[in-house]
Amino acid sequence: MSETRWEEIVELLDEGAQGELQERFTEWSEADRTHAAAHLSSADLARLFDALDVGQAADLVEDLPDRQAADAIGEVGPDAAAEILEALSSDERADVLAEVDAHELDAILEASAPETARDIRSLLEYDADSAGGLMHTEFVSVRADSTVAEAVSEIRSAADVYARFSIQYLYAIDAGGRLEGVVPLRALLLSRPTALVSDVMIEKPLALAVDEDLDHLYEIFEETEYLGAPVVDVQGVLLGVVERSAVDEATLDQAEADHMKSLGISSGEELRSMPPLERSRRRLAWLSINIVLNLLAASVIAAYEETLQGAIALAVFLPIISDMSGCSGNQAVAVSLRELSLGVVRPGEIGRVLVKEITVGLMNGLALGILLGGVALAWRGDATLGLVVGLALAINTVLAVSIGGSVPLAIKRFGWDPALASGPILTTLTDVCGFFLTLSFATAVLV
Amino acid sequence: MSETRWEEIVELLDEGAQGELQERFTEWSEADRTHAAAHLSSADLARLFDALDVGQAADLVEDLPDRQAADAIGEVGPDAAAEILEALSSDERADVLAEVDAHELDAILEASAPETARDIRSLLEYDADSAGGLMHTEFVSVRADSTVAEAVSEIRSAADVYARFSIQYLYAIDAGGRLEGVVPLRALLLSRPTALVSDVMIEKPLALAVDEDLDHLYEIFEETEYLGAPVVDVQGVLLGVVERSAVDEATLDQAEADHMKSLGISSGEELRSMPPLERSRRRLAWLSINIVLNLLAASVIAAYEETLQGAIALAVFLPIISDMSGCSGNQAVAVSLRELSLGVVRPGEIGRVLVKEITVGLMNGLALGILLGGVALAWRGDATLGLVVGLALAINTVLAVSIGGSVPLAIKRFGWDPALASGPILTTLTDVCGFFLTLSFATAVLV
Repeated sequence: MSETRWEEIVELLDEGAQGELQERFTEWSEADRTHAAAHLSSADLARLFDALDVGQAADLVEDLPDRQAADAIGEVGPDAAAEILEALSSDERADVLAEVDAHELDAILEASAPETARDIRSLLEYDADSAGGLMHTEFVSVRADSTVAEAVSEIRSAADVYARFSIQYLYAIDAGGRLEGVVPLRALLLSRPTALVSDVMIEKPLALAVDEDLDHLYEIFEETEYLGAPVVDVQGVLLGVVERSAVDEATLDQAEADHMKSLGISSGEELRSMPPLERSRRRLAWLSINIVLNLLAASVIAAYEETLQGAIALAVFLPIISDMSGCSGNQAVAVSLRELSLGVVRPGEIGRVLVKEITVGLMNGLALGILLGGVALAWRGDATLGLVVGLALAINTVLAVSIGGSVPLAIKRFGWDPALASGPILTTLTDVCGFFLTLSFATAVLV
Repeated sequence: MSETRWEEIVELLDEGAQGELQERFTEWSEADRTHAAAHLSSADLARLFDALDVGQAADLVEDLPDRQAADAIGEVGPDAAAEILEALSSDERADVLAEVDAHELDAILEASAPETARDIRSLLEYDADSAGGLMHTEFVSVRADSTVAEAVSEIRSAADVYARFSIQYLYAIDAGGRLEGVVPLRALLLSRPTALVSDVMIEKPLALAVDEDLDHLYEIFEETEYLGAPVVDVQGVLLGVVERSAVDEATLDQAEADHMKSLGISSGEELRSMPPLERSRRRLAWLSINIVLNLLAASVIAAYEETLQGAIALAVFLPIISDMSGCSGNQAVAVSLRELSLGVVRPGEIGRVLVKEITVGLMNGLALGILLGGVALAWRGDATLGLVVGLALAINTVLAVSIGGSVPLAIKRFGWDPALASGPILTTLTDVCGFFLTLSFATAVLV
C-alpha cells in the first residue's frame, strides 16, 4: 500500500523534520491540505500547527471545517493558539473560537493582545448567523470632512487590509465614529483630490443592524447589487462590514445543516473525524424518537391482527403503502419549502396550497392506486384485495400530499423552522392513516 | 375576504389602468412583486409586462423564477420580449431564454438587435452551470499599452456598466482581444496618470476556461479572495466575467435542485404556478419506479407468507424495521455527501469509510435492536420474538449504515452524481435485507 499524504505528515512530525514539512506544505493545493488534515487526529494536527510557521498554520485553519480547527487549536496551548488566531481575519477567528471549549477559550484570550481579546469577546457575543457574527472588523474609514486626497492616502496605508478583503468601499464617519456615508473607489478615482469626502460619498447608505438575522441579510443582498454592507450599532456607530460572499456562504452552510437535521443528525454537522461515540450520539437521539413514532404507527397494525391473519397478503402491501405515502408527502414538503424560500408563497396561504396539492394528489393517487391495485389483482387474482390496497393507497396519497404541502406553512406561521415538517412526524402521520385505511377497508370487505 | 395584491393587479389590468399599475409597482418591495407575480397566470403576467414600462418589466423578470419569467416572456410577443430582454444583463437574459421554447426563442431573436441576438446565441451555447453560462459580457477592457489616464476615462464612459455590476476590475487586453492582465481599481487610484496600464496590472491573472464546470468554479473561488474572474476562450480571448456571487448563487440553486431530485421531483424544480398535470408528471415518473422497487422488496415478504401466518406479530414489526433501516442508511449517505463536498474524503477511500461506518452502525444497531427487541418482549412476553426482531434490526442497521456511507463514494468514482445514492435504491436494498433477515430468523426459530 502506497504511503498517503497524511501518513507522510505523521512521519515527518515524528522525525521532527520541521523545515521539510513547511516546504511540502507550500507545494500542496488547498484541497490537498484539507484532505490530508482531515485524516489527522487533533493531537497530530496540533503538532502540525506547531511545526508550520504562523502564516501557514493560519492558512490551514481556514482550510479546515471550523469544528476540526477548533479541536486542534484547543490542543496547541494558549500562546501558540493566540499567535495563530492573530493571523486570521476577524470573522474567521470568531467562527473557530465559537467552537472552542469555554475554559480553553479563556486561556487563549488571556494569552492574546488585550485589543484582540476585546475584539474577539465582542464578536463572540453575536449570534454566528447574524450581521454581527458574519461581519469582519477590518475596514477602512475616513472622516467625512477630509479630502479625497486624504482618503487615497488612507487607502495607501491600509494596503494590507485591501489585499486580504478586496474591499471596494471606504466608509465615511463623523467624529463619534457614526457612519455618514459610503465611498466607492470609483468615486475617488473620478473626483478631484481637493474635493471633500462628504461631497463624493453616497449619503444615508444601507446600514445593517448588528443583530440582523441571516434570512433577512440574504434577502437584503438579493434585492441589491452591493458586494458588502456596513454594520452599525443602535447609535449608528460603524462596527464592521458584512460581505455578500459571507452571507451566501452562511446560507449555503445553513441549507446543508438543515438537510442534515432533517435526516436526524443533531446540530446539523457530523464529520468522520469526530469520535464514533459522539457520531453515534448525534444520530441516535433522533433515531430513538423515530422508533417510538414507528411503534405508534405500527400499533394500528397490531389492532387489526385478526384481519391480517385472515388475509395475510395484506402484510406484503403494508410496507409499500407506508413507503409510497411517505415519499409523496415528502415531495410536497420539498415544494412548499422551496416556494417559501423563494417568497412565491406565504405562510397564510394554506387554503390555496391545499387546493393545489389536492389536485396533484388526486392525479398521482389515482395513478399509483391503479398500479398497486392492478399488481395485487394480477398476483392473487383477487379483485377485492386489489380494490382494498389500490383505494387505500389512492386516498392516502391525497392525504399525504395535502398534509405535506400545507404543514410547512403552518409551522412557519408559528415561527418555527418549516424544515421540521419533513421526516418523522409526517411519515408517522401518513403511516397511521395508510395502515388504518388498508386494514379497515379489508376488515369491511375481505374478512 | 379582503382583496389580495394580485387580484388588484388583474383588476387594474382589466380596467386598462396602466398609469396606476406603473405607480403601484414602484411602491412594492421586491418580495411583494415576487409574491404577487407568482399568483398570476402566464397570460396575466404577459399583460402586466405590457402595461409596465420596459425598465419595470425587466426588474420584474429578475424577481421571478426563470421558468415563470420565460413562460410569460413567451406570451408577450417577440417585439415586446426583445425590448424587455434588451434591458436585462447578459447573464440574466441567457438564464431566462434558456427556458423559452425553441420556436419562440427564434422569433424573439429575429426581433432583437443583430448584435444582441448574436450575443444571446453564443451565450446559449454554453451549459448554464459552466463559466460560459454564468458569465456576463458587460465588462470594461483597455489596451494594456494605454495609460492610466486613458483607463480612467474608459471607466468614466462606462459608468452605467459599473453602476449595475459593481465591477471592481478593469481588464487589460492586447490588439487581438487576448487577456493580458487585470487592473484593480485600487491600482489605478494609487498610480500616476501617465503610467502604462501594463505597468500597474497584475500579469498572468487567473483566467477561467469557458467550459469550466460549476463544482470547479466553486473550488477556485473558495481558494481565492477574488470577487470575479475573467473568462477566456481557447485562444485566450476575453469573453466575459464570472462573479463570485453568480457562482455562489448557482451552487445554492444546484444544492436545492439536488435535494428536489433526491426526493424524485424530475429536473429538480417544481412551482405551484405550473399546470397540475405537469407537476403531477414531474413527481410521478419517480414514484412509479419507486413502487416497482417497493414491490421487489415486498416480494421477500410474499416468499415467507407461511412464516408470517404462523407469527402474525411479525407483520407489525416489518414496516418498523424497513423505516428505521432506511433512516439510518440515509444519515450515512448525508454524512458521505457532506464530506465529499467539503473535500475531507475522496472517492477512493471506501475501505476507510466502511470501517468507520461499521463502528457507528454497530453502536446504533445495538441500541436500536435492544430497544425494539425489548418492546417486542414486553408486548408479547415472547423472548424469541424479541430476539428475532431485535437481532434483525441490529444487523440491518449495520448493513444500512455501511452501504449508505460507502455507496456515494462508489458512485462518485464512476463519475455519476453521488446524490443518487440516497433514496429509492438504498431503501430498496435495506428493505430487502431487513425483510429477509427478520423472516428467515423467524423461520428458523419461531415456526
